[in-house]
Amino acid sequence: MADDSDTVITAAVLVIGDEILSGRTKDRNIGYIAEYLTGIGIDLKEARVVADDVEEIAAAVNALRTRYTYVFTTGGIGPTHDDITADGIAHAFGVPVVLHPDAVDMLKQYLGDNLNEARLRMARVAEGAELIENPVSKAPGWRIGNVHVMAGVPNIMQAMLDGIAPTLATGRRMLSETVEGRGVKEGDIGGPLGDIQARHPGVMIGSYPQFDGTRFTTSIVLRSRDAGPLERATADVRRLVDTLISEPDR
Amino acid sequence: MADDSDTVITAAVLVIGDEILSGRTKDRNIGYIAEYLTGIGIDLKEARVVADDVEEIAAAVNALRTRYTYVFTTGGIGPTHDDITADGIAHAFGVPVVLHPDAVDMLKQYLGDNLNEARLRMARVAEGAELIENPVSKAPGWRIGNVHVMAGVPNIMQAMLDGIAPTLATGRRMLSETVEGRGVKEGDIGGPLGDIQARHPGVMIGSYPQFDGTRFTTSIVLRSRDAGPLERATADVRRLVDTLISEPDR
Repeated sequence: MADDSDTVITAAVLVIGDEILSGRTKDRNIGYIAEYLTGIGIDLKEARVVADDVEEIAAAVNALRTRYTYVFTTGGIGPTHDDITADGIAHAFGVPVVLHPDAVDMLKQYLGDNLNEARLRMARVAEGAELIENPVSKAPGWRIGNVHVMAGVPNIMQAMLDGIAPTLATGRRMLSETVEGRGVKEGDIGGPLGDIQARHPGVMIGSYPQFDGTRFTTSIVLRSRDAGPLERATADVRRLVDTLISEPDR
Repeated sequence: MADDSDTVITAAVLVIGDEILSGRTKDRNIGYIAEYLTGIGIDLKEARVVADDVEEIAAAVNALRTRYTYVFTTGGIGPTHDDITADGIAHAFGVPVVLHPDAVDMLKQYLGDNLNEARLRMARVAEGAELIENPVSKAPGWRIGNVHVMAGVPNIMQAMLDGIAPTLATGRRMLSETVEGRGVKEGDIGGPLGDIQARHPGVMIGSYPQFDGTRFTTSIVLRSRDAGPLERATADVRRLVDTLISEPDR
């Protein structure tokens, strides 16, 4: 894992599955992967959710793998007929789907007599892929080029990501500070906050209102790869928030 | 709202916000909108998450609005400098950003002397837009062409969606049945389930494993716009699940 380089490493997440688009299953993988990548110094730049459709998967994979350092897919690598992620990704790379011999061996060893034709589908990969270990239920994920193919079941995906992380190039970590403006309305802080943003172009300043049903409060999140500018901008925001909180009639 | 038509109405969701991609905020809007649209007979076909970046927003909006009947965006319509959804969508449509006079009036009436320059940002729309009511906190959403621009705060977004729904064309509702295969492993049901799918091409059959840390169970979800074929395929799946559950050594 390369650290402290000035290179910015980027990524996209591709969630594959009709069940997410129908609303039956609520995705929990985008948020998890987003937080995980931020933590190791990789910028998640985009996420997409597409249906179980070979052409849709292939089009999304090709759009994303050419733009970002890494792509992480979740879903569609199980043993049933609707698990067609391998087909979509093979199509994107213009290679056939093959049974990975190591995956077949692993499944044989783990499943013994229970290894039937359906379960053998879990050894299907795009030709040229390398396996990603699945410590939870053995059926592996895999990587081809810069695309990492992971399970959709959250705890399995998370275990796979732990296995992948040490193999990834990472950039300088994004640092972040949060100033909680309790009782501060976004509309009151908006003007002067924009001025602070203008004075600190190297720091990304986001403003996030929460609404508890009766009133808003505002969290200001500051992000930068450089500690000095981040500290100075954060000090300015803290002063602003203190001023607003101490004003009467709030 | 047109009902019982044979037209399939499609949609995409575009979530706009750095906070989702950094993992700081976990998106809850995609899942809510997915379930909502399914319920009123609109097929959500794709979802994307992009950063607070005018070019990224514009590119995604143009990719999605040309492919699907409707696009629903969430986020980036508040009063701070990082709320640039209006800029991105105006750019996509090739029109300027303007202050919508009705939105200005509404904000004046609601906010009185608190209407400052920052809050006035909440009246910014792409030229030609129509307002979408915000019963929670007044600052409106808006629609231009087939693109509906909504708040990112979930309860405000949900209220806006309730207001939009009666204006949408809807297709024949997708019907769905779920067969819970408790104790059924996906790898055991995979083969015969694929055969059932092949016999019922008009029904979409999905298989969704859950894993509770020690073992998998499998939910089979069948979907079709036609009740007859759905009923017949569901009966086949129920028979299959019953057979698997009654087998010894499971």
